[in-house]
Amino acid sequence: MFNPQLNKNGELQHLLTIEGLPKANILHILDTASSFVSIGDREVKKVPLMRGKSVFNLFFENSTRTRTTFEIASKRLSADVINLNIQASSSSKGESLLDTIDNLSAMHADMFVVRHAQSGAPYLIAKHLSDTSQSHVHVVNAGDGRHAHPTQGLLDMYTIRHYKKDFSNLTVAIVGDILHSRVARSDIHALTTLGVPEIRAIGPRTLLPSGLEQMGVRVFTDINKGLKDVDVIIMLRLQNERMSGALLPSAQEFFKSYGLTTERLALAKPDAIVMHPGPMNRGVEIESAVADGTQAVILPQVTFGIAVRMAVMSILAGN
Amino acid sequence: MFNPQLNKNGELQHLLTIEGLPKANILHILDTASSFVSIGDREVKKVPLMRGKSVFNLFFENSTRTRTTFEIASKRLSADVINLNIQASSSSKGESLLDTIDNLSAMHADMFVVRHAQSGAPYLIAKHLSDTSQSHVHVVNAGDGRHAHPTQGLLDMYTIRHYKKDFSNLTVAIVGDILHSRVARSDIHALTTLGVPEIRAIGPRTLLPSGLEQMGVRVFTDINKGLKDVDVIIMLRLQNERMSGALLPSAQEFFKSYGLTTERLALAKPDAIVMHPGPMNRGVEIESAVADGTQAVILPQVTFGIAVRMAVMSILAGN
Amino acid sequence: MFNPQLNKNGELQHLLTIEGLPKANILHILDTASSFVSIGDREVKKVPLMRGKSVFNLFFENSTRTRTTFEIASKRLSADVINLNIQASSSSKGESLLDTIDNLSAMHADMFVVRHAQSGAPYLIAKHLSDTSQSHVHVVNAGDGRHAHPTQGLLDMYTIRHYKKDFSNLTVAIVGDILHSRVARSDIHALTTLGVPEIRAIGPRTLLPSGLEQMGVRVFTDINKGLKDVDVIIMLRLQNERMSGALLPSAQEFFKSYGLTTERLALAKPDAIVMHPGPMNRGVEIESAVADGTQAVILPQVTFGIAVRMAVMSILAGN
Repeated sequence: MFNPQLNKNGELQHLLTIEGLPKANILHILDTASSFVSIGDREVKKVPLMRGKSVFNLFFENSTRTRTTFEIASKRLSADVINLNIQASSSSKGESLLDTIDNLSAMHADMFVVRHAQSGAPYLIAKHLSDTSQSHVHVVNAGDGRHAHPTQGLLDMYTIRHYKKDFSNLTVAIVGDILHSRVARSDIHALTTLGVPEIRAIGPRTLLPSGLEQMGVRVFTDINKGLKDVDVIIMLRLQNERMSGALLPSAQEFFKSYGLTTERLALAKPDAIVMHPGPMNRGVEIESAVADGTQAVILPQVTFGIAVRMAVMSILAGN
Repeated sequence: MFNPQLNKNGELQHLLTIEGLPKANILHILDTASSFVSIGDREVKKVPLMRGKSVFNLFFENSTRTRTTFEIASKRLSADVINLNIQASSSSKGESLLDTIDNLSAMHADMFVVRHAQSGAPYLIAKHLSDTSQSHVHVVNAGDGRHAHPTQGLLDMYTIRHYKKDFSNLTVAIVGDILHSRVARSDIHALTTLGVPEIRAIGPRTLLPSGLEQMGVRVFTDINKGLKDVDVIIMLRLQNERMSGALLPSAQEFFKSYGLTTERLALAKPDAIVMHPGPMNRGVEIESAVADGTQAVILPQVTFGIAVRMAVMSILAGN
Repeated sequence: MFNPQLNKNGELQHLLTIEGLPKANILHILDTASSFVSIGDREVKKVPLMRGKSVFNLFFENSTRTRTTFEIASKRLSADVINLNIQASSSSKGESLLDTIDNLSAMHADMFVVRHAQSGAPYLIAKHLSDTSQSHVHVVNAGDGRHAHPTQGLLDMYTIRHYKKDFSNLTVAIVGDILHSRVARSDIHALTTLGVPEIRAIGPRTLLPSGLEQMGVRVFTDINKGLKDVDVIIMLRLQNERMSGALLPSAQEFFKSYGLTTERLALAKPDAIVMHPGPMNRGVEIESAVADGTQAVILPQVTFGIAVRMAVMSILAGN
């Protein structure tokens, strides 16, 4: 299958998904990120790796949080960042997605960071750039529909490696609304590629997609069984819009059945870490005592997230 | 007549309109832009010509597309850019336009890039700056009502010169809703000043302003006659809001009578170029096959547009 | 009382309010601002004092005007600025204020400029940063509810010192809607600390808060008496939303009773200066002839405001 995210030398041309991304590329990103983690602590937090490069944050779906992380990563790499909220813009004038891309490329864009409600939009863009011989322009998927959120998956891997060193002996549980989660999909692919022997998915049957077992994932509907002796717990955010839907009785009910409480956390290994992509719904998927507890690594995830995004962008810009 | 856009040495003080702008000034802008075109291809796309200067994008009317081009041009000149969407701001607090200008000038603004739904707003600002002895602050008109869009006119001239070298033997056709188009007005003035011997306006009678003939323009309501042997075709965007109005039967009807199709393009000279200010309505004013065809120079227009805006801004900042 | 805005060496850790801020700190800010006033006139208006620092403009309440002044001040100090309009963002996803702060801190923020409709929000943030050992992150209050607007108070003091040199022999009148004004509160505290012997509050009884006399302020409901022989007049903005309310008959009535006219200005000392925090309602709290007259120092206030904000930010960043 044609994989537009690697060039013919196997180097990263775009970052579209973790599915199928070779282990070597993932490790290269994580290793590069390591060198950027310390930059955040320096007096001057900038490196000139992307000086004079133009990064466009193309957010067809609003996400201040994710856009901010890419904006910071870009500025710390000394790139020029242009934020485009496309709903308010030429979309409303009926310009097609690809005409917008062609126009911005003609302005000598170097990179598009794309967030889109539709799965596959970043692929469409990458393919179009390739079809029109604009392979000097790079695409980073910042979340497309339910499909993928690869930088979140990579920062999760960075975090796990940071605390657990080795992937080869871990049990990792992903808990919550796995059906609608692009984070869960990206994490499962990354964990598999990195050789995690046991991946568990925990949630109510209505929020578990079919096909998990074929991906090598053990499925649990009972959280108390699922958390038994795990090393890593990745909590997912419960989308507000799901709570009032037919798939779930109520937020309170969800918390009662699947919320991560201190008691449930005690079922995991004593040194288990608790992760969450944020923003958290305290009292819905996670108890405040756990979110603020010593096993939570939710804020380090954010810190590592900047470094991972800097790594991805600088690797792309260097190719 | 007092022309606020030139200082007493005949140098550009503001860019408000192409009407009355001397040929020497236009050529100076085009020549300066030439030197910036190559910058877009460089590894580091920045020059320090406006380092430490403060450019305010004052958009009283939303236009992400035009704002983006000025934002990129400013950043490539190393200026600091502040984007102000004025509808959402002090306008709603009842502050007058000129009080806003005085306030921003007091913050040591160097340049205002102004987009306004009302014709003449950039003039009002330029006059006020002159009246209050703030002639170190420069104004660039980024589109005012139906009046003018001078940087679009200039980038169109740059594009024509790039492909046709010489203006003195050209036939240029402007097609579509000329009545409501500030682009058409700016283009007609520029083409006239640069010595184009034949300028044609093509459109339905309801979308042709009176007075075109007095400006030396040949008017055609039959596009097949109008396109005969032209060197340059400038298509205009049909505004959505016109399509449902009394002036036009429908978008489909418009395309049937005035859309640029492959067949119609064949009526022009074989090496004719096709231009469009964007964003295009494919299937309304232009057929996709033409928009993506070998004669279209619509994307080069965008590239040249950045260079032309850099030229205008750096010339103003240097005076 | 625990004052989070000073560290144990008495240096500025946050700028939250002028109430209780020692005279030495105020004067240090004003003196530092002096050195920045001239920067605005230079060819290159930047200093590298905050290069590589990340400043977050956290505006939970829209204020383009104030945000712009902080954005300019940050850029002239060479900081990286990220603007976050929090209403449109994670707030709507139910993330708590302090979770947002923790997240941004984890991105290695250096400074938060906070505007919030609720009084005390910047305190809450500063306290949280202290509780979580993040004392390298600084908070600047850019206006919280009716409570305080310290940078406005400081720029007012800068302006008064610039024109009057000495605070110790001044009579200063504050006129208008004092009840709802955070500017008035900040000014009264600053004037008191700097030793102004006579502070007057002038307004209709419905817009005067209780307790002014205890703060050492002389209260006048008759503007003609209140303006007699004053050195400085600080006009306040009448909020549109008040005008239609029960507290005021109408804008016209207000102007008749409390608008600053040329005649009333003549009651003050001949060299009295007229100040206004902007944006002005011409014809409501101030006559246009006065706003544009020789005694008005309203635009210099804006200029000094940038320098004062640069001073506050660079002092905080240096501690």
